[in-house]
Amino acid sequence: MESNNGTTIILMSGDMDKVMAAFNIAIGAAAAGKETAMFFTFWGLKAIQKGNYTGRSFLGKMMSIVNRGGINRIGPSQFNFWGLGRWMFKQMMKNHKAPPLEELRKAAIDLGVKLWPCQMSMEIMEIKKEDLIDEVGEVCGVAAMLEFSDHCKQTLFI
Amino acid sequence: MESNNGTTIILMSGDMDKVMAAFNIAIGAAAAGKETAMFFTFWGLKAIQKGNYTGRSFLGKMMSIVNRGGINRIGPSQFNFWGLGRWMFKQMMKNHKAPPLEELRKAAIDLGVKLWPCQMSMEIMEIKKEDLIDEVGEVCGVAAMLEFSDHCKQTLFI
Amino acid sequence: MESNNGTTIILMSGDMDKVMAAFNIAIGAAAAGKETAMFFTFWGLKAIQKGNYTGRSFLGKMMSIVNRGGINRIGPSQFNFWGLGRWMFKQMMKNHKAPPLEELRKAAIDLGVKLWPCQMSMEIMEIKKEDLIDEVGEVCGVAAMLEFSDHCKQTLFI
Repeated sequence: MESNNGTTIILMSGDMDKVMAAFNIAIGAAAAGKETAMFFTFWGLKAIQKGNYTGRSFLGKMMSIVNRGGINRIGPSQFNFWGLGRWMFKQMMKNHKAPPLEELRKAAIDLGVKLWPCQMSMEIMEIKKEDLIDEVGEVCGVAAMLEFSDHCKQTLFI
Repeated sequence: MESNNGTTIILMSGDMDKVMAAFNIAIGAAAAGKETAMFFTFWGLKAIQKGNYTGRSFLGKMMSIVNRGGINRIGPSQFNFWGLGRWMFKQMMKNHKAPPLEELRKAAIDLGVKLWPCQMSMEIMEIKKEDLIDEVGEVCGVAAMLEFSDHCKQTLFI
Repeated sequence: MESNNGTTIILMSGDMDKVMAAFNIAIGAAAAGKETAMFFTFWGLKAIQKGNYTGRSFLGKMMSIVNRGGINRIGPSQFNFWGLGRWMFKQMMKNHKAPPLEELRKAAIDLGVKLWPCQMSMEIMEIKKEDLIDEVGEVCGVAAMLEFSDHCKQTLFI
């Protein structure tokens, strides 16, 4: 890749508004011709999970119940009381023709944005490769992410 | 602008402590001679709103009521129970002669820090240009922000 | 230092998962031969506090009680109801042989990662140098952090 171009986004948040921001920046970067990668770690993994229950151990299953993945289940970081936040936010996005998260993700994939799941997070949270959508790339660690980032102009932690 | 100098701060948070951190870094960067821009998106817009109620639709107005803008209404991300957080934090800042947010913002403006509101966030949240303080620059999108950021040394997401 | 290599991490969060992410990235960067510094500001200071009660004034002491420092007292940003979050998270980390925060911090120190506490945060929160672990470097401000960051490839705000 061309040196000093490109954008890396480390997405740790599983909050709707931040996931949305992450995909919007990734789309903008890819549309501007930058090589772009998103590294999904911890709660960010929810954005690339299929949405099935996960986990092997009792704790892993319990975590999956209180924090189930899947891009349509994600709520915003503010005002999520009684699910109102998610509904209100989705409604306002719809009213203003902002594309839903699923379409943003599709646009990112179509533009060639790489989706990399973080290995350590998957191990701790007991999420398997099969629990993730098919479009994700290789499961990788911090070293691989930093290596890509070394050729990038922006590296954001969201 | 000189290439590879400059600092971009994407401020998505509307929490007092993070807004404060964002302005402090922007001031530090501008004082060091870097061209500095802050891109205000989602809850971050509160920091450059005048503070009036906003919104056109029922939902937009409702969001403005639970999440009213204006730099003096902002509370910290931790311990905001019963407004104690904001009061306690403000009091400790005052006791230690740390400037309040409004002064930090003024210092940033005086040092030439650009304040850019995010177009898409304004549309979704139904915030108009008139709802923002006069010192803000052009309403812009991710593309313009990334273009500026391409000439910067740091791009932070706060 | 070699120009345009190196990594700066500004750690503002005191949440277990984010502190863990910060140390993991710092370790990865240092292990890859990059000069790496972590700048601890606000709640992030908890990760390098000894864990004793702090504060001089009534408010400072009160803040220390509700928000006591020390790397073993830190809880994750999600699901911290009744302390379950911290226990569950720690347990899952242990089950999967992920090192606890204290070992991560030690590994970072052993790899030469610089730990810099933010002066202004210490003043506002009434935390003294003696309240911090011995391995921290000079107390410094935004200017010094940015100067280091100017020679870095990545600057992350966590």
